[in-house]
Formats: sequence, C-alpha cells, structure tokens
Amino acid sequence: MSTEDVLAAATRAKEAAYELATATRATKDAALEAMAAALAAHEPAILAANTTDVERAEEGGTAPNIVDRLRLTPERLAQMAQGLREVAALPDPVGEVVRGGALPNGLELRQVRVPFGVVGMIYEARPNVTADAAGICLKSGNAVLLRGSSSARSSNAAIVAALREAVVSAGLPADVVQLVPGDTHESVKALMRARGLVDVLIPRGGAGLIRSVVEESTVPVIETGVGNCHVYVDASADLDKALAIVVNAKTQRTSVCNAAESLLVHADVADDFLPLVIDALAERGVRIHGDARFGEYDGIEPATDEDYATEYLSLDIAAAVVDDLEAAIGHIRRYSSGHSDAIVTESQSAARRFVAAVDSAAVLVNASTRFTDGGEFGFGAEIGISTQKLHARGPMGLPEMTSTKYVVTGDGHVR
Amino acid sequence: MSTEDVLAAATRAKEAAYELATATRATKDAALEAMAAALAAHEPAILAANTTDVERAEEGGTAPNIVDRLRLTPERLAQMAQGLREVAALPDPVGEVVRGGALPNGLELRQVRVPFGVVGMIYEARPNVTADAAGICLKSGNAVLLRGSSSARSSNAAIVAALREAVVSAGLPADVVQLVPGDTHESVKALMRARGLVDVLIPRGGAGLIRSVVEESTVPVIETGVGNCHVYVDASADLDKALAIVVNAKTQRTSVCNAAESLLVHADVADDFLPLVIDALAERGVRIHGDARFGEYDGIEPATDEDYATEYLSLDIAAAVVDDLEAAIGHIRRYSSGHSDAIVTESQSAARRFVAAVDSAAVLVNASTRFTDGGEFGFGAEIGISTQKLHARGPMGLPEMTSTKYVVTGDGHVR
Repeated sequence: MSTEDVLAAATRAKEAAYELATATRATKDAALEAMAAALAAHEPAILAANTTDVERAEEGGTAPNIVDRLRLTPERLAQMAQGLREVAALPDPVGEVVRGGALPNGLELRQVRVPFGVVGMIYEARPNVTADAAGICLKSGNAVLLRGSSSARSSNAAIVAALREAVVSAGLPADVVQLVPGDTHESVKALMRARGLVDVLIPRGGAGLIRSVVEESTVPVIETGVGNCHVYVDASADLDKALAIVVNAKTQRTSVCNAAESLLVHADVADDFLPLVIDALAERGVRIHGDARFGEYDGIEPATDEDYATEYLSLDIAAAVVDDLEAAIGHIRRYSSGHSDAIVTESQSAARRFVAAVDSAAVLVNASTRFTDGGEFGFGAEIGISTQKLHARGPMGLPEMTSTKYVVTGDGHVR
Repeated sequence: MSTEDVLAAATRAKEAAYELATATRATKDAALEAMAAALAAHEPAILAANTTDVERAEEGGTAPNIVDRLRLTPERLAQMAQGLREVAALPDPVGEVVRGGALPNGLELRQVRVPFGVVGMIYEARPNVTADAAGICLKSGNAVLLRGSSSARSSNAAIVAALREAVVSAGLPADVVQLVPGDTHESVKALMRARGLVDVLIPRGGAGLIRSVVEESTVPVIETGVGNCHVYVDASADLDKALAIVVNAKTQRTSVCNAAESLLVHADVADDFLPLVIDALAERGVRIHGDARFGEYDGIEPATDEDYATEYLSLDIAAAVVDDLEAAIGHIRRYSSGHSDAIVTESQSAARRFVAAVDSAAVLVNASTRFTDGGEFGFGAEIGISTQKLHARGPMGLPEMTSTKYVVTGDGHVR
C-alpha cells in the first residue's frame, strides 16, 4: 500500500519533471518568488503545525537541542523565504553549454547542462531543509520528493502545501514539489528502490542514515556530510597562524561537518606548540584526547584508535604528534572521512606534497577547515557537501544538481 | 577465502593508487609505451594462452560469434598495442584546473581534476578490453581491478602479466594493474561490496550483467551501454537524408549500442516514406516489426510492446507511424534507454522541441545515432558509454575517469 503510494508519487514527479525541465528561467524565478511569498502568507498555519510537532517531541522526551532544531519562529520562516529569493537571483544552470565545437566531418557537438529529472531528499529534523531543498531543486529544473523526519511531519506538510500552491500560481505543475507519502521505513525503502523513476537520492543527516541509504538504494546516491576533518601543523608552520586556525576550526561551530576533529603536530614544533594549543583549547572548554606526547601535559585524556576515527561534533578533539609530513599524510589517509583536511605551513614543498597526497574533497593550506562551504565558496546555495568521488565532490551548488546531454547537429550525416 | 583474496588485492590497489596519483605525465606515458611494447614482446605467450581459451570455448559448444570475440590474432594484438600508444599521446586529465579564482576574503580556490583512486571493471568475453581499460585507467591515474569473463581467463592472465612487467619497468608499482583473483560469483560480489577500497565500478556487457551490478553493488557504479536508440522522421524531414540516416543507423554495424532499434515516422510523410524505407531495409536483410500502418505493406512482422522495448543488436527494427512530434517524444520517453535518439527534420522548431524534450545521453538532429562514440566525438579513447545521469553521461573519455578536489590556499585565514 505505502510502496504503491510512493511509486505513484514518483511517477507524478517524473511527469512534472518533464514540464519543469523545459521551463524558462523567468518562470522558475517567478515560482521561487511565489514560494517565498507563500511562506509568509501561510505563516500562521505553518507555525501552528510546527507547534504540534514541537509539543509531540517534548512530550516524547526529545532532547532540547533536537527540539530546538525542530522549532520554527517567524524569524526562521523569514530566513527560509529569503533563501528562496536568493536562489531566484542565482544564474540558471540548465542550458549552460559545458563544451562544444565542430567535429572534422562538420557535425556540431555541444554538451549542455540538463536537470537530473527527479531528486529524492532524505533528511532529518530541521524543517527549513524542506524549503531549501525545494528551492534548489526547482531552480535546477528537478522535481523533488521530500522525505523529512517523522518528527517534523506536520511542519513539513504545512510548508509543502504552501510551496505547491505557489508553484501552481506560477504556472508549473504542483507535483514538482511533493512529500513522500507515508511515515514508515517501507516508504523510504520504496523511494530507494524506485530506479527508473527517481534519478538521484541525496541523504542528509548522520552517518547511520547515510550508510543505510548507500546500502539499500538501487537509485544512484550522492553521499553528503560526514566530516572527520584534520588540521596538521607542519614543522615550518607559523605558530600564530596555526593556533588561530586550530581554534577556529574546532570551536567556531562544533556541530557542523567542516569542524576539525583531529589535530596533528610535527614533532619539531611540538615543544613550542603543544603548550600554546592546549591552553587555548582548554580556555574554550575543549577536551583533548591525545597521544603520549600530548599526555605529558595536564588535562589530556588518552586517545584510542576510536578517537582518531570519530566525528565528535562537540568540544572534543583527538590529537597526536607525528614524526614528519609523511606520517601526517599516512594518519590522514587512515582516518580522514575525505571531507576537509588542512595543513599549516610556510614551506612550499610541504604544501605541495600535502595537497597532492591528501585525497579529500577539500585540501586547505593555511586556512580553517570551516571554509569548506557552498556559501563561503561563493556558490550562493548549497544542497549539501558531497564526500564521494562520483559526480560531485565538496560543496554542491546549482550546477552540481544537473546532468548533461550531448546535442549533435548535422545535415544528413552518416558513418 | 576468495573474498579475502579480493579484498587483499583491492588493498594493494589502493596503496598503488596513491603512488600513481602523483606520478607525472612523463612517467605514465613511459609506462603506456612499455605496455605496448610488452604486448608485442609477449605475443607468443599471449596467443598460446588465448588458444587454450578458444579451444575450451569451442569444446564447450560456445557460439561461433562469441568464440570470434574471444580470439586474438597478431593483428588484434597489434591493435591493442596501438591503442595504448594512442592513450599515451592524449593530454593528461589529472591536475587540470576545472575552475578557480579568488574569494572576497583573499582565499584562493581551485577545483582540480584528481584520479578516482581504484576502478573496478567487470566485463565480458573480449580480451582486448583488458589492455584498453588498463591503459585508460593508468593514464587517468587510477589503479584498476580487472574482472573479465572466465572464458577469457588464460588470455587475460597472460595480457596482465605482460602489462604488469611493463608498468614496473617504468618505475610504477605492478599493482596498479591487477586481475581480480578468483573465478566465482563470490569474487565479483566481494568486488561489488568493497566500498572504501574500490571507488568506482564500471560494468561493460549485456543488460543482465549491468542490472546485477547495479542491484548488488554498494560501490558507486557507472552504468554503460544498453542502447534502445530511435530515429524519428518528422513531417518536415528531407526524405533522402532520412533514408540514409535510417539505413546507416540500423545496418552499418548491428551489434553495437548506438545502432538504431526503432523507427518512428510522422503520419504526414508515411505514404511517401514507408515504401522507400521498407524497400531499402529489406534490401539489406532487415526484418521490420511494424505497427498497423507498416503492416499495410508486404513482409512486415507485427510489433508487440516488447519489440518497442527491445535492444535487438541484430538486423531487426521496430517501427511505428506517429501522429505528430509530441507522439514521437512520448514514445521515446516510454521506450528509450536514454542512450541516443535522433530526429530527421528541416524544421527549426521541431528540432528545438525534440532536443529539449528528449532526455537521452545524446540527442541527434539530422545525423545517425552511430555517431555517439568517444572516437567520433574526438575524445581519443573511450572506456564506455554512460547511460546514467550521475557523474558522466554519454561517451566517457579520460576526463570522465577522474574526480575533482578543491584546493584552498590562504595565509592564516579563519572564519
């Protein structure tokens, strides 16, 4: 029953996607503006629905920080609307000619960006993702099937009702934005097996969610977000820059995937740098899980292998002293999740080697890992940060939400 | 046992891939030249091994056309060597800056092509794929795990032994080119589940092979090759061009994925075009599986739904008369495998609508579907033709065998 409902929704999405794929930028931008206006117009209904979700979560004993993520306010709703307007202002990726030219036989060849078709989003509590994802998908010409957390079901239903009304008012089919029907695992599973109807699945959330989607899905998946990010302080580092970068990468915001989770220090600067960094981190309430060299100082908890592999997302950091640059690279190859890894060094050759040898979505030299972000990179909107190597790697903006097709034009050409 | 062997081979491939990823173009080209020379130097051993495979296949009652694909000759071996030299002459995709610039805060941002790491190839009988895939993977900086058909096991072992010797002579680790150990389904399965060790799987072969890889693999897959390609003859077609294109697309080579399998004709030109095309195809031995309108002529077999969905790869073609352009688009959306679909028309607006509405890897206007090919497109080498939308779509050359990373350079930048 639930599976059939999901497949029916996916079929409607595919039909709607054909129409959206050939919509002009003007139509899509008008729809995005209407979506922003609709969030404001439906504010009372959306906030009322959200109150239902929040009360249910509180009654169920949900942790306060999770309840906070779930909660919508007039300000948060206004931010969601503003986000939609910002997406409207971005260039349309659809139709962009990626490369083109004439072949020796006179055939004209162009590789052109086109939408994927139907995108499935599987995500956790925050209801703002519902509007963000709908906006990015619409602008990139993709119909979207949204599967948020069941804890946000009333909020998401109210948001999507408003967005669909807006889409129709702009002359596009309502089914370019849909909630996945059903609240069960059965319905997520149906989405993950809807190969041929759903073109791409993007899971956003914790490592467990992402792993289960990767394991179960036959629809192609873009993995996002798990970040066990490293900062390596080289023998040739400017220690002031190193200190600022470590503190920023660890403490500026701890719950995000581009926060640093591990610190590696070259043995040659350990005596100078360890006292500085241990003090600076302690001052900001960071617990250091360190190796034996770090353990020579007060207040260091001993690190296990598990610590070096952990994405804490908290005021914790794993730390070790390494013999040289190659040992740092070896450690990162072993433990990094391939999100963002940084070196602090004044040495050209060390920077060159680190950049070449560390195989991560972003490799940073003398900069905080916190810069790996669609907004910081100037992409204007971000659907997530891909940590896989296929299709898109790193922050994904609008162009990453498209495929391409080859258009070949001749005049009766045969082989 | 077999699973452990595969994982051990994948682990060696991953280690070797780190070294290959930072090899210079000069080193890689020297390895490719050495690989070409090694195929010549080992010709007696390779041909002897091939004779074993061919005799076993013949004794087992394998169909002659399959035995022919399996058979190597001095000429075919020379072609394989020539292919490796041609790959050496192509530009190195690794290190190419895809985009780059300075951010408002002075950070320098570059998106740079890097190898995937470890590529798994699963393919059928032809032993030439072994050398072709090894060459393309090596040039793009990827270690490769080759899993050919068990019917070609002796040939593949002899070829890979020669290639590994050559790779080592050029100063690269032998394990950048490996056969997947073991001949059982267990060993293929281990390859498909080696997430974290194998970065990408590329199946090349029939629809059944590709479907099973897509279903079972947790490693990201690039689907290749199934082609149910259409030629649509529009009301505004030049019928001479249409005839030449249909005959070429169907008959120039029937066993390939870019051959036409379906013909659609606009009702307005049916009376003029059907007699011409039926004669021309009959003359070349093509069996037409047609709808009622085609059935008014002699020698037409009635088409079923199944015919319209079939990739014949033979001298057969499904055919139908459609009421208009939209009906042709509807038919293609329903039955096309999204490989290559062509319109023949002199009408700008019909061409524009067809190109926009048909969602295939290649959409051709007044040109044969046979042009969808890495060689024809000028890519110089082709690992396969992707029919999926993620990562690469259409013919895949060297750049499609890479991922990218972002390199971010600052001077102590923090947020």
